[in-house]
Formats: sequence, structure tokens, C-alpha cells
Amino acid sequence: MIRFHITKKSKKSNARLGLLKTPHGAIETPALIPVATQAVVKALTTEEVVQTGTQALIANTFHLHLKPGEKIVKRHGGLHRFMRWQRPLMTDSAGYQVFSLGFGMDHKVGKILKKRSENKVSHPSAQPQNVKITETGVHFRSPVDGSPLFIGPKESIRIQESLGADIIFAFDECTPPTASHAYTEKSLERTHRWAEQCLEYKKTKQALFGIVQGGRFKDLRVESAKMVAGLPFDGFGIGGEFGGDKKRMMHMIRWVIDELPEDKPRHLLGIGYLEDIPKVIKSGVDTFDCIVPTHFARHGAAFTSVGQLDMRKKIFLNDTKPLDPRCACEVCQTYSRGYITHLLRAKEITPLRLLTSHNLFFFNTFVARIREGIRQGII
Amino acid sequence: MIRFHITKKSKKSNARLGLLKTPHGAIETPALIPVATQAVVKALTTEEVVQTGTQALIANTFHLHLKPGEKIVKRHGGLHRFMRWQRPLMTDSAGYQVFSLGFGMDHKVGKILKKRSENKVSHPSAQPQNVKITETGVHFRSPVDGSPLFIGPKESIRIQESLGADIIFAFDECTPPTASHAYTEKSLERTHRWAEQCLEYKKTKQALFGIVQGGRFKDLRVESAKMVAGLPFDGFGIGGEFGGDKKRMMHMIRWVIDELPEDKPRHLLGIGYLEDIPKVIKSGVDTFDCIVPTHFARHGAAFTSVGQLDMRKKIFLNDTKPLDPRCACEVCQTYSRGYITHLLRAKEITPLRLLTSHNLFFFNTFVARIREGIRQGII
Repeated sequence: MIRFHITKKSKKSNARLGLLKTPHGAIETPALIPVATQAVVKALTTEEVVQTGTQALIANTFHLHLKPGEKIVKRHGGLHRFMRWQRPLMTDSAGYQVFSLGFGMDHKVGKILKKRSENKVSHPSAQPQNVKITETGVHFRSPVDGSPLFIGPKESIRIQESLGADIIFAFDECTPPTASHAYTEKSLERTHRWAEQCLEYKKTKQALFGIVQGGRFKDLRVESAKMVAGLPFDGFGIGGEFGGDKKRMMHMIRWVIDELPEDKPRHLLGIGYLEDIPKVIKSGVDTFDCIVPTHFARHGAAFTSVGQLDMRKKIFLNDTKPLDPRCACEVCQTYSRGYITHLLRAKEITPLRLLTSHNLFFFNTFVARIREGIRQGII
Repeated sequence: MIRFHITKKSKKSNARLGLLKTPHGAIETPALIPVATQAVVKALTTEEVVQTGTQALIANTFHLHLKPGEKIVKRHGGLHRFMRWQRPLMTDSAGYQVFSLGFGMDHKVGKILKKRSENKVSHPSAQPQNVKITETGVHFRSPVDGSPLFIGPKESIRIQESLGADIIFAFDECTPPTASHAYTEKSLERTHRWAEQCLEYKKTKQALFGIVQGGRFKDLRVESAKMVAGLPFDGFGIGGEFGGDKKRMMHMIRWVIDELPEDKPRHLLGIGYLEDIPKVIKSGVDTFDCIVPTHFARHGAAFTSVGQLDMRKKIFLNDTKPLDPRCACEVCQTYSRGYITHLLRAKEITPLRLLTSHNLFFFNTFVARIREGIRQGII
């Protein structure tokens, strides 16, 4: 059960301020939803995540189904209790990951690819037949142990119910950026049937968001948005894989938003970079998940008021300033650039946390300022 | 400048309670000194280290000389400021690491070996000629980039002065466990000459500890202890590499302690396991460094009141209890075994911190109880 109140609408753009109330507290929107893929924000404790000003997290249904399995999470009292996170939680539908097993291997895109190589799992590479789509769902092989698995709308809802997040998503096919109009159309029809089935299957009071797909095609995006908007979802996810084509993504968001009802929350699944955030918010998106602050941190990048800094560079070793002298986060109150650079170059674990924590604080502050801008009527 | 007060002597053993006052506060002895090899307790922030009840840390002169270099640390205001640690700090002499480049490669012992392979540095393996000892010090090749380096008593003191720890150690040769009596004797004479030179070279008010060596030979150990005890050191380190032979180590400690003055602190360099701690303390050692709580944590081990647990094991996935139900640490107040096991099995970073933090708290509490036992006259 969620309730969504729009508290202010921008006169300069489609941006809106809102309050998304969930059983675990409210989210001030627009809001960044950092990723807790495997029920943890990589490198941080939940206490630290709270200190970064993070309002809600999104966990990964696919990964948690594989490890540790939703039954174990349920036995721990659900995801909130398992990971000791008292604030709002979302889980995605697993669709993106399941399908990226197929097209990710063809097109070298998708988060799952990296995950697989990290886990050193051998598998027949670039074989789209690894993923077999039927009317009831997708057959695929576990990237953990190669065993045959199946997830469809029924399974996705069942898993997400066991995990127990406040907001869950309908199972969808996220088509590859290269998919033809014909394939995308066929896929979309199936995704729409799955959307209806998800609404039917859901037994809990969790909020269920429908996902708009349709690839890069305006007619299909509009059709999808209209269709999904017509179903009794609690909110809407905007899905899609654009392989880094941000211009195309922004077009797509505009086509879709125009068709979605104003009074329900809109979540953009997997936004890109810091510079995309203002545009996305201005186009009328309320929440969005983003791996950039956390993922980049683990590769040594600090987001600062003077831009993105590669803290692995030797030049910072003598720098006694904080990561960002204008930042109010705990890391910037405590440690110097020089120390963090030393730790990165020495292959320590601690700097990954320090950068993750700082970057999340930086992104959350960035979004909070945009909210303030909307409040003041300047955005 | 340090001052050492013995506040109580055990009647049942050689154990003693003391207060070791340094410019950065006092250490209640006996005390565990966790390792901050590269100016960080691996996986933790300094704030967290404080929360584990850690009183003092020992950093590694050799590693910090290589990365980031003592000049950079000095430019940051010294090691305390660099790593934001306000409590007492020790640095070792670099002798152990320099020599383990030689005998470590012969005998597959020594911390440096692992470090080297972790850093993927190629080098001619098992070539003792990598290390060349002269009267003034040791020529060796940098494990970072293979460049020729030289450290002797003069260099060790100069580096340790730049780092600026409260307690520093004289440069010594730590002979391999397999060294003959003849070699050990010759090495010891040189180590004694270096001890005198270190006292001469030191210009700062840092406390300087002399190191007792002598390998596994009683006559040499006694001779070394007498010789070093006769020099105006502020305290004493007991060095040596016993390759896991704990019985021999305990014998050695007893031979040495009998010769050391009662009123000065004694530090055992690189103690072994949890079960060795009571014996070491009863033999009259005041402080000791130990990698076990931190190193084992990064390999998934939790020390608990029911023994050491391998938290990577699947069996813990359903366990909703804390790591140790009797433990008062923050981790045990917050997270379940099941969650930590999930995170370990999912190759996350966060559990390494949780286990490090818990283990340090556990070890510090263990030592605090021994102090209490001495106070109460039962140890």
C-alpha cells in the first residue's frame, strides 16, 4: 500500500514535487533510489546508507532469487529485516536480468554480464539460446551453477512477495537496443499480457508498478504507456535499454510520460549519469535508480562540486583537502584526498566505502537541491 | 616520550598490569595492538577501530616507505594526522619485511609474500640474493616496481621519524626459523651493532624500543636480551619467526623476559592465535601485535564465545542469531549470521568489515577480561 501526493508542480517543466508514502515511511520525490543489488549497498552498512541521506533502496529480485533464495530471506522476516533497512524498499521484476542473459551476451551490455565473469562461471558465450521465451515466462540457466531455471510473471510476483519490498514491479521483457520493430511489437504484446497476469497473481498489499516498454519506437512506447496506464497499477516503471544513447532515452521518456496518469508515481529504471538527473526530473520522473554513485566509487571516482575526480591518480597523494571542500558528508569532514588516494593505490578495502559513502551523499544532495529548486519555482 | 607504570603484578604468573603513557594517550596493558599495515586497519575506518575498543595500532614502516612514501605522510602532518588516528601508534622497524623478502621466498613464510602475489609483481622467485646484507643495512628490490632499495638502521630511523609514531623500533635482522647457530650468532652481533646505531641516529622524542633476536637458541636469546636490556631503550620488542612452532616461541619468551628490566614495557612482535594470548600475557609481555582478528575476518572467520566459526558455510544462511549472542559489539547488535553469510557467499565487501569489526571487539574484550583477571588476582 502506497499513497502518492503531488505537493507542487513546476511551471517551467514537467517536474513535480511529491510525497510517496509507504509502510516504511515516505519518500520525498523526485528521489534517487540507490541500488542494493544483493540486499546491500556494496561496501556500506545500512547505518551508513542512512547517513548518506538515502531515502529508499532497490534490491535485485533476480540476484536474490539465486543467492540466498527468497525462502531464506522470508525466513529472516523479509528483506527489510534481513538487511536491517527500515526505510522504503523496491525490488525489480527480474526481467531485465533474465533477458540480459540473452541479449547481454550478444551485445555485451547489461549488468549481469559483469556479474557472471566476476563469479567466474563458465558458460557457452554469446548463445542467445541460453534464454528461451515462452508465453508463461523465460527458461534460462543459472549463472551461479548452470542449473535450468524459469521465471515468468507468476514466479516474479511470488519471489517479490517473499522478499516483501514496499514497491514491486511487473515482470517484463526488456528488449535489446538493436531489436527490430516487429520483434519489439511481439515482445510488447507479451509483456502486456504478463502485466495483467502480475496484477492477478499478486496476493499481498505491496504496491505493484507496471512497466512501460516498447524499445526505441514511438508508436510502441505510446501504445505501451496507454495500455499499462489503463491497468490498476499503483505506479509505473519506465523500462528500456538504450545502450548509452541518452538523447533517444530522453525522447522516449517524453513520449511515455505524456500518456501516464498524473496522480501516480513514475519510476525510471536504471538512469545513466549525474548530468541526466536534472533532465529526467524535468521530464516528470519521480524516482529513478542509478548504479553510478556506488559503481564508480568502487572504481576510484569521486563526484565533487568541481566534477568527477579519478582518485587513483598519483597527483592527489599530496592533497590535504577533502574529496570535495564544499561537501558536508562525514568522509569529507574526516579524511583527505591524499589519504584516500594512498588507500586506493595500496588496494585497500576502506577507500571503496569512503568513496561510496561520499558519492551517495553527493548524489542525494544534488537531488535534494533540485527538489528545493522546484519548491522555489526555479526548476 | 613514554612513561610506563606497572600498577599490579600477578602472584600467579609473570603477568603485570600497566599503564603505558604516550603523547597520544595511555594504553592499559596488557594490550593487543592491531595492525594497520598500510596506515589503515583493513576494511575499517578509524572511527570504527575506536569502537572496537582498540587502544593503539602498529603500522608498517616497510609498506609505508614503498607506498605512499614517508615524505608524503610527513607532508600530511605525520601518520596520526594522515590516517586520522588520535590514539597511540607504533611503527615497526621494517626489518621483518626486508628480510622476509629473502627467507620468505626460500621458506614460503612471511607476510610480504602474500602481499607480493596480491600485487601481481613478477620477480625472480626463491632467490635469496634478492636481499643482500651489509654492515650498514640491506639491499633489496622493491616488490612494487623492482627498483633497488636500501634500508639500514639509519634509514629505518629516518623513515620512522618521518612517520612520527609514538613508539618506534630499532632495525634488526629477523633470522629464518631454519637458520643455523653460526648464522644466527653472526646476524645477532650485527643486529646489536644496529641497535646501538639506532639509539645514536634518533633525533626525535619518539620512544625507541630495542629488539631482542637470537632465533631458537637459548644462549643467543639470553645474550641478546642482556645486551639490548643494557642499552638506553624506552622498551623492548621480542622478535623472531618460529614458523608456527608455538611451544618453541613460549620457551623463547621465558628465556628473554627473565633478562629484561621489570620497569620497561615489553612488546611481542607478531603473536599467533587467540589461544596464545593468555600464555603470552602470563609470561610477562605487555603489548603484542596480531593479524589474526583482522586477517581471519577477511577470510570469513568469526571469533565467538563458542569458538571460531567459518561464516562462509551454507549452514548459517538460515541462522537469525548474531555472530555471537554474548557479544556486545555493534555488529552483533545489528546483523544476523544468515545475512553476513549471504553477503560473504555473494562476494560482497560489507561482510569483511562486519567480521573485522566484530573480531577486533572480541579480541579486545578477551584481553580486557585478562586484565580484569590480573586485577582480581585470579590470573
